[in-house]
Amino acid sequence: MQAKPKAVRLTDAERFDWLRLIRSENVGPRTFGALINIYGGAGAALGALPGLARRGGAARQIRVATSEEIERELKAAREAGVRFIALGEPEYPPALRQIDSAPPILALRGRQEALQQPAVAIVGSRNASAAGLTFTDRLARGLGAAGYVIVSGLARGVDQRAHIASLETGTIGVLAGGHARPYPPEAAPQIARIIESGAVISEMPIDWEVRGRDFPRRNRVVSGLALGTVIVEAARNSGSLITARFAAEQNREVFAVPGSPLDPRAEGTNDLLREGANLCARPEDVLSVLEPLRARDPFSILREEPRDAAERLWGEPALLDFDQDSSPGGGPGDAFDPEAPDRGASEPPRALRARIVDLLGPSPISIDDLARAAEAPISEVRIVLLELDLAGRLEHSGGARVSLTPLRERG
Amino acid sequence: MQAKPKAVRLTDAERFDWLRLIRSENVGPRTFGALINIYGGAGAALGALPGLARRGGAARQIRVATSEEIERELKAAREAGVRFIALGEPEYPPALRQIDSAPPILALRGRQEALQQPAVAIVGSRNASAAGLTFTDRLARGLGAAGYVIVSGLARGVDQRAHIASLETGTIGVLAGGHARPYPPEAAPQIARIIESGAVISEMPIDWEVRGRDFPRRNRVVSGLALGTVIVEAARNSGSLITARFAAEQNREVFAVPGSPLDPRAEGTNDLLREGANLCARPEDVLSVLEPLRARDPFSILREEPRDAAERLWGEPALLDFDQDSSPGGGPGDAFDPEAPDRGASEPPRALRARIVDLLGPSPISIDDLARAAEAPISEVRIVLLELDLAGRLEHSGGARVSLTPLRERG
Repeated sequence: MQAKPKAVRLTDAERFDWLRLIRSENVGPRTFGALINIYGGAGAALGALPGLARRGGAARQIRVATSEEIERELKAAREAGVRFIALGEPEYPPALRQIDSAPPILALRGRQEALQQPAVAIVGSRNASAAGLTFTDRLARGLGAAGYVIVSGLARGVDQRAHIASLETGTIGVLAGGHARPYPPEAAPQIARIIESGAVISEMPIDWEVRGRDFPRRNRVVSGLALGTVIVEAARNSGSLITARFAAEQNREVFAVPGSPLDPRAEGTNDLLREGANLCARPEDVLSVLEPLRARDPFSILREEPRDAAERLWGEPALLDFDQDSSPGGGPGDAFDPEAPDRGASEPPRALRARIVDLLGPSPISIDDLARAAEAPISEVRIVLLELDLAGRLEHSGGARVSLTPLRERG
Repeated sequence: MQAKPKAVRLTDAERFDWLRLIRSENVGPRTFGALINIYGGAGAALGALPGLARRGGAARQIRVATSEEIERELKAAREAGVRFIALGEPEYPPALRQIDSAPPILALRGRQEALQQPAVAIVGSRNASAAGLTFTDRLARGLGAAGYVIVSGLARGVDQRAHIASLETGTIGVLAGGHARPYPPEAAPQIARIIESGAVISEMPIDWEVRGRDFPRRNRVVSGLALGTVIVEAARNSGSLITARFAAEQNREVFAVPGSPLDPRAEGTNDLLREGANLCARPEDVLSVLEPLRARDPFSILREEPRDAAERLWGEPALLDFDQDSSPGGGPGDAFDPEAPDRGASEPPRALRARIVDLLGPSPISIDDLARAAEAPISEVRIVLLELDLAGRLEHSGGARVSLTPLRERG
């Protein structure tokens, strides 16, 4: 079991560097975490980005977010009433910080208190049936009355109904794009109502226009905010099932609402039930599973599973436990100092880089297996992988396994 | 694992005595089994009945079926095309003979070959929804095409639809009353069609008018004939759930069809899913569970569970394994000889009878515990219980536990 992470508070300068780093090309939440852990702070990592990407084989210079871009975003955020919450700060949602790919920065509109309450996600079809919408309403009201915030994705159908039914008790909407470009556009009035008592969050730049691939990315945040996710109606291969898969990977509870085998909108949920999801036909079905979890310490509230730290891509279980970092000079203040030395960022030998590229292929492999095959220290392997990642040449799969990006694969 | 029982064949005289015994007052399938095992045959048991019931405290003379009654039933059966199949005979359905309370005699109309095929029971609401009926049709056709006979209870709604959909591939209807008084009455034309390729069976006297309590009794035969039972639609507390409970107690597979939480007809099936029933949304869901069982030896086809023989009321695992009986003179021919001595039927001391009545109360207790408390051999305890049973003073509960019948309880 991991220790309760110590809350930190970024300075304005650190927050600025964090935004620059996460808005830079090929830097996702996991890469961000690796960079912070290796370089001890966002400022130092920013300086190292171009060199890392070049050594990883990037075809051209990696695009690092400029200070001007971040200043523009901060200004737009102020005007739109958006605040930024960094991973590790006390306002950050405690359930979300425990997922592997927790967003380093959340952009928030509304009441940050909503992020501290225990939450249930309710998701489902955009073209839900009348019965599905009615059930969503009952479920959201029942769970809201029991003290749970309802999380959803602001989509038409089940999502919006879940938000509306929980306006009074608290609801969190998670945007797939930026706050300035809500999707779907007609959700704007609803968002205005949600933020009165609840919250709307986004991990994307404020003016980000949503693309198809942003929805699954968003769905991991929906499930990650919640102790459990309820799928109300879902056809096969629908986005709601992606949310269910994320919830399961995050060791959260998955609930599925049963439906007639003749209703295509129930195929996905019935499949989930067949695979062992909890059956949800009333709010009590959710409460009976989550209440015992909720009664425990909030930081051990999630189902614990023995975790092989080496199985995780970036190793460190608590991203911001800087004071537990044993590397020299690693105090919390130091950690965020852009001028700090490149702790642990010794450049791996060129031969190792070539060997690892040779060993990698289109089939995902665990980092442990890769390090064994390369006969190299795992710390050096991680840096090579970071370089490849920043060069856009690495794919991540479940179980912290990696492979070479097929299109850019080189012998 | 119990040995494959050896098939026997009753003589006409033995069959006559079996019918008399099972048609006598207070003689159910379990009591029948106990009497046959203690007295070695139905003829001897018939002679012992009045004395046993008297010693058990019967207020009046027990009613033993007369030869005239049985002759009338045999004549009516001949005229109606009804044949009798005794437990242990090769025509007896192999799955049914394995249940604790297997009917000693089945009255059959139709093709006895249908009783030898692997079977699935499909049951559900009388007032089924259109979707429920359509699904029943698809399911029965799919399972029929895969080689399964469909068993059901001839009731309106799901039952009748299941029979109709499997007329060509084979279906078995189980009556709650006698063949001469089918229930519901409008099922008569359907029964005429079923017996062309399938079978209709009853354990009741041919002219028995059905009563409410006969339906649960019949339901144990429906589930007992099948490797698995599918509940299509079922409100809470409906008869279909009784069939599901029997199936589970008989170590058979239980399948439930999911439905909308807003549909009261799905409450029972959703409850079953919540409790761990297999989800059935297509024939493959049933086949994937049953095919591996079916591929095994037909007599070990049912899920095996370690069984404590002493936990079962009447002990002997294979009712008709007379050639395995170690009591003196116990050959198969001898076993059915009405003139055979009362093997093992030594009368227990009066003091033990009083002690057992004192020890029994309204709370069910296992026979082992009862024998320990009475400090008496279990064989003698069994005979006292048989006496009480025949006197109508004993109640049977799950797990082979017994209690005194509350209304007739005496200090």
